[in-house]
Amino acid sequence: MWQGPACRVVAVDDPDYPGFVRVILGRHAREMADLDPAERDALMDVVFAVEAAVRDAMQPHKMNLASLGNQTPHVHWHVIPRYRDDRHFPNPVWAAPQRDAVVPEDRRSRAAKLGPAIAARLSP
Amino acid sequence: MWQGPACRVVAVDDPDYPGFVRVILGRHAREMADLDPAERDALMDVVFAVEAAVRDAMQPHKMNLASLGNQTPHVHWHVIPRYRDDRHFPNPVWAAPQRDAVVPEDRRSRAAKLGPAIAARLSP
Repeated sequence: MWQGPACRVVAVDDPDYPGFVRVILGRHAREMADLDPAERDALMDVVFAVEAAVRDAMQPHKMNLASLGNQTPHVHWHVIPRYRDDRHFPNPVWAAPQRDAVVPEDRRSRAAKLGPAIAARLSP
Repeated sequence: MWQGPACRVVAVDDPDYPGFVRVILGRHAREMADLDPAERDALMDVVFAVEAAVRDAMQPHKMNLASLGNQTPHVHWHVIPRYRDDRHFPNPVWAAPQRDAVVPEDRRSRAAKLGPAIAARLSP
């Protein structure tokens, strides 16, 4: 979706979560605490710009942000729009499913336009 | 553990996760995107200082950071030290348990000293 000097933004291919986006640090670092303050701020500026773009485009009930990396210990952020009717709500997307969820077509079409919206917000 | 001008830091009472800490915004806001940049940076400075303090004190395999708020839509951050032998590793703590985990005594005693370590890092 977008490539910056320090990180890239990619769409996550999860059929239950259109609009799920990941922000991945370019250089290798294990933890946020391994970044110097300027690098950390630059990365979080992108994460929060992506959060705002996803929120605007997807109009979710709630935004979820997480940097976990237990399986892939390389700094990356999950940015996930959540809806009351999604598969796991109100639990995190990694928890047990709460229901068989059918994603509304409208949500998929919003997600399809997300790339340009994110790029527009990040590239001056 | 610590009270600042814009947020507070509290220990989470989860027997499986000693060292689990929450950073809670003082004023009400639903999403990070609702904060102005200065407020957002001030909050994240605390979150990342707490992350560093927890990592130093707890020596985990990985740190997890998350702002979810599906059940309580008020900005707060989870800061969680993770270990290969913990109850859910490598999955997020909200996922299905992977094992019956016994928390080592050493980990509990490190967590007991975490409050002063966090306060020392946050109060100049």
